[in-house]
Amino acid sequence: MKRRTFMTGLAGAAGTGIAMPALAQSTPSIRWRISSSFPKSLDTIYGGAETLAKYVSEITDGKFVIQVFAGGEIVPPLQAIEATQNGTIEMSHSTAFYNIGKDPAWAIAAALPFGLNARQQNAWMYYGGGGPLLDAFFGRNNLVGFAAGNSGAQMGGWFRKEIKSLEDMKGLKFRVTGITGKILAKIGVVAQAIAAADLYPALERGAIDAAEWIGPYDDEKLGFVKVAPYYYYPGWWEPGVVVHAFVNKAKWQELPKSYQNAIKVASQATNADMLAKYDAGNPGAIKRLVGAGAQLRAFPRDVMEASFKAAREVYAETSATSPDFKTLYESLNDFRADSYLWWQLADVTSDIFNIQNRGK
Amino acid sequence: MKRRTFMTGLAGAAGTGIAMPALAQSTPSIRWRISSSFPKSLDTIYGGAETLAKYVSEITDGKFVIQVFAGGEIVPPLQAIEATQNGTIEMSHSTAFYNIGKDPAWAIAAALPFGLNARQQNAWMYYGGGGPLLDAFFGRNNLVGFAAGNSGAQMGGWFRKEIKSLEDMKGLKFRVTGITGKILAKIGVVAQAIAAADLYPALERGAIDAAEWIGPYDDEKLGFVKVAPYYYYPGWWEPGVVVHAFVNKAKWQELPKSYQNAIKVASQATNADMLAKYDAGNPGAIKRLVGAGAQLRAFPRDVMEASFKAAREVYAETSATSPDFKTLYESLNDFRADSYLWWQLADVTSDIFNIQNRGK
Repeated sequence: MKRRTFMTGLAGAAGTGIAMPALAQSTPSIRWRISSSFPKSLDTIYGGAETLAKYVSEITDGKFVIQVFAGGEIVPPLQAIEATQNGTIEMSHSTAFYNIGKDPAWAIAAALPFGLNARQQNAWMYYGGGGPLLDAFFGRNNLVGFAAGNSGAQMGGWFRKEIKSLEDMKGLKFRVTGITGKILAKIGVVAQAIAAADLYPALERGAIDAAEWIGPYDDEKLGFVKVAPYYYYPGWWEPGVVVHAFVNKAKWQELPKSYQNAIKVASQATNADMLAKYDAGNPGAIKRLVGAGAQLRAFPRDVMEASFKAAREVYAETSATSPDFKTLYESLNDFRADSYLWWQLADVTSDIFNIQNRGK
Repeated sequence: MKRRTFMTGLAGAAGTGIAMPALAQSTPSIRWRISSSFPKSLDTIYGGAETLAKYVSEITDGKFVIQVFAGGEIVPPLQAIEATQNGTIEMSHSTAFYNIGKDPAWAIAAALPFGLNARQQNAWMYYGGGGPLLDAFFGRNNLVGFAAGNSGAQMGGWFRKEIKSLEDMKGLKFRVTGITGKILAKIGVVAQAIAAADLYPALERGAIDAAEWIGPYDDEKLGFVKVAPYYYYPGWWEPGVVVHAFVNKAKWQELPKSYQNAIKVASQATNADMLAKYDAGNPGAIKRLVGAGAQLRAFPRDVMEASFKAAREVYAETSATSPDFKTLYESLNDFRADSYLWWQLADVTSDIFNIQNRGK
């Protein structure tokens, strides 16, 4: 129901002389649509949209219903954000870097290669200066946006052959998206854009040499282990990918304040919830994948270092052409330097000791 | 307003023949009290209760107001949970290990030494089997509980003298709380229970040799650097401390379902929010503390290993006396083994590379 219709309906009730309007106005029945960019089979990342909608419904006593659609059901997966910008749908649940064709600045809202991990990205957004910059950027793009999910650090993907040094990356046909493709091009990789459904056959017949997706829990479902068993880490291009809930700005402004707050708070709760779901699901999946033949490999040091150098070059070049990228990058990069200084103390030393002593 | 009062008031309105009850019942005006266990000066951990209350008010259009009291204002800080159990107050915002005098199982709800980091604790609670066990435990203690804040990995505290080996821990008078005191006793430390306000003078005059509190952002405010400059890490006893929102069970059952959901969702959002606030505040604080003379030191390897061995002994002993501890510990410890197996791949290798390459 549109708000206008509701308000009209209200007049009749108000005419009875009962002091209802303030109460009724604040909780109109509203039905919206949200398109995920992901298929239902990925219950973690797609599930975030369902969690968000469930939370909003629960805290509005079922009055604000957001119907969830999988990628492609009502708009193509990679156009969910654009469809929100132009008002075709009220909301989308997507990774901002799917919009980098419009401006590379979108990448930073989701994850910057060699950037921040999941907790740091949240810290930057909520309390480290990133939030107001992102709000302004989204606003100029006709959106209101909230972090509503995170994958944690992703894996580096599945390779048909072992990578022993930087030399082995040259000419490699690698399915990878966005700004990472530009970075990898500088070390000789040939980035390939291939839809998820076509990845397995492309890997199987050798049309591509490698493909990255997300992490163990999701990757397991796509079966890559059978055709490209070398499973590399870390996915340095995605140290903590944010999935955003985007709302069309005009639709947002029509909402009662309490419903705006319901979306805001439910998004932050969903942000924590999705990360926990990944963190709970990945350990079992990596064990099963290794059981199925996955060969775990760390990227060689020279690959990491050459990629890092290439990333810095790409960021300098991109900053020169996109003012929004430059603004966001400088803020994030300042935060990054201090954040990793702190991170090496309590968090990483505790993690490493517990990794070394993880036996039951 | 109590719900009963509201329901009585409702009867009159319903008598007008307008179909109001369903609408009105769902959003009664309610005012509750929550006691934090922390002072207002700690804007992170105390601030969590304010964030939670703000979120609940915002999403109920100001109808469900939870008034926040600092530790000691209406109940003593360490008795906030007990006051919630017996219904003196409707809610508390506290660390569950403050209740370990009743049963050591409470410790596991907050943080187990050498246990899970912040993300892992969330994963265990939300999706790894911990949630239902904790719900049952809290329920038997007349409470409903939600994670509503996390500190991240804490520091190991401030020491007047450098600790060069396990030998230097023997006889050390260390302010530390709870189950950690039992663990440290096994390696010769004399645990001291001292209120926060008395810590500085005790350290200054040498009544104690060392004290741990939280992490840089909070510790800075207590000024320990001036009297005990050796600042140790990691705080292996607190790899990710959960702060819970506890609700008296009878009061919970009186709430409309949507208000129960408001507390649930607002708590999960607050859980993410507090961790982000710590992660954003700690980097600047550690830089300022080092500037003020803090000497950063990692605990010697033999201290870590002896403490880990002692912890396992304490857990076996405690499991033999507390069935609730045993149940929760076995679940958490199973989760821990697999979780750190996964953690060493993408997350830690990415963090370490970025720590090594954190220059701007």
